[in-house]
Amino acid sequence: MTHTWVDGVETDVIPNDDRGLNYADGVFETLACDAGRIGCAELHLLRLIDGLSRLRFNDADLTARRIFREALALILKVKHTGAARLTVTRGSGPRGYSPPSRCLPRYVLTTASRLPLSSSALRCGIASMCWSANIQLAGIKSLARVEQVLAALEAQRQGWDDVIMLDEAGGVISSSKGNLFLLNGNRALTPALDHCGIAGTRRQLLMETVLPDSGYGVHVDTVSLDALLSAESVIICNTIIGARPVLQVGDRTFEAGPRCAEIQSRLSACIAACVG
Amino acid sequence: MTHTWVDGVETDVIPNDDRGLNYADGVFETLACDAGRIGCAELHLLRLIDGLSRLRFNDADLTARRIFREALALILKVKHTGAARLTVTRGSGPRGYSPPSRCLPRYVLTTASRLPLSSSALRCGIASMCWSANIQLAGIKSLARVEQVLAALEAQRQGWDDVIMLDEAGGVISSSKGNLFLLNGNRALTPALDHCGIAGTRRQLLMETVLPDSGYGVHVDTVSLDALLSAESVIICNTIIGARPVLQVGDRTFEAGPRCAEIQSRLSACIAACVG
Repeated sequence: MTHTWVDGVETDVIPNDDRGLNYADGVFETLACDAGRIGCAELHLLRLIDGLSRLRFNDADLTARRIFREALALILKVKHTGAARLTVTRGSGPRGYSPPSRCLPRYVLTTASRLPLSSSALRCGIASMCWSANIQLAGIKSLARVEQVLAALEAQRQGWDDVIMLDEAGGVISSSKGNLFLLNGNRALTPALDHCGIAGTRRQLLMETVLPDSGYGVHVDTVSLDALLSAESVIICNTIIGARPVLQVGDRTFEAGPRCAEIQSRLSACIAACVG
Repeated sequence: MTHTWVDGVETDVIPNDDRGLNYADGVFETLACDAGRIGCAELHLLRLIDGLSRLRFNDADLTARRIFREALALILKVKHTGAARLTVTRGSGPRGYSPPSRCLPRYVLTTASRLPLSSSALRCGIASMCWSANIQLAGIKSLARVEQVLAALEAQRQGWDDVIMLDEAGGVISSSKGNLFLLNGNRALTPALDHCGIAGTRRQLLMETVLPDSGYGVHVDTVSLDALLSAESVIICNTIIGARPVLQVGDRTFEAGPRCAEIQSRLSACIAACVG
């Protein structure tokens, strides 16, 4: 059973003057729910606040907190297990880029079916579609996701599970679905997201808790395609898949064995410990 | 009287699983309508086809032509005068960036009130928000317009009519509302849109017809902020305002007199001649 609400009212439509539709004027969060509880609530809330602030929503902090609280209450009420998506837009407005001076932000909450349980390693290609660069918007999960849509379409058409996405200078940023970690010995490297990419909640948990606790030194830096292809292991992470090993990128294969499984398992335990 | 249709049915809501809302997975056109006829129909149609093709919609050409034909018929039916917006999305889909293999594109057509008649010169600032760069998406009018929203918000908060927008290298690309032309003697220069910006229909008309017919040599090139600020005259163009002179950018003032009025008037005549 799935549900969808707009501003707390169960309905599957929104006004077509919504600025989220018309200008991608908003952000979203993908939440992993277990019997009405969600993982990493605090990290999602912080990113939501950051997103609304950087999009200069009025009262960004208060608005994000109110909407997030309402969304959590709805998820709890239906005891949802599976994915959920919380979209927050600047609300309705007349034609024109300029937001109305008094906006009423709108949220859409949609639950989806149970999370896939597979933990199999991913077979990846390399996307020809690059990330758009913009240091002022880098990191937030805005509604403007065209590059990932087109990259995902490349994966689909070529029969890959996912694709590696680069910036226009050829640096590795992410996959179409999630953030990346390269493992070499006890060194973990994840691409810097200063000028593009989404700063994932699972990336943050891996960087700040799971990997250090597992004995890895974590580095954030530019990552060349050569570095990716010469890594011992590569992990893709997001809210839904957790931390999944990459089996191959094109012809290059990686170790996708026990140490990846251990990181996956530690990440799950870490999320279970901070379910809110 | 304004109207709004979704796939030809008069309604003011769309399903909230629409990929236009969720991923900015679509494009739009802003149309200037006069008693049910629209200006530069062919140019709008060609850009729509280009947009859907570059977003890799299935049957992009056929889909764009069918939707555009239906939209024109609706506008004619209600004999609309004023602006109209035609949004085309990849339609509904489940959670996830990857489009469903069988998408049914959706369109939203909304008419707005009469066009503003003012032709007064624009007072502009310079936006701190830059254009995102992506050579694969440059030029199309995708739904992802966050940079222009934030730039327009800067204009609003600082009391400007509009703001000049740069790329991250500091090159001049456009204003938040439209394309730019710099006039110096009989030379007209407009920014190259290879890596960002929207290739406007009025820009095209000015470049290919109006300015050459008025004795200008037209150049497309990178444009520095210095070049902008040292131009004799600057024009901002879009579908709604036509070609409007810029009175000032910050402290710098420009000639906004007869030759701008003549270009505006010739553009209007050119559009009137190709109303379809």
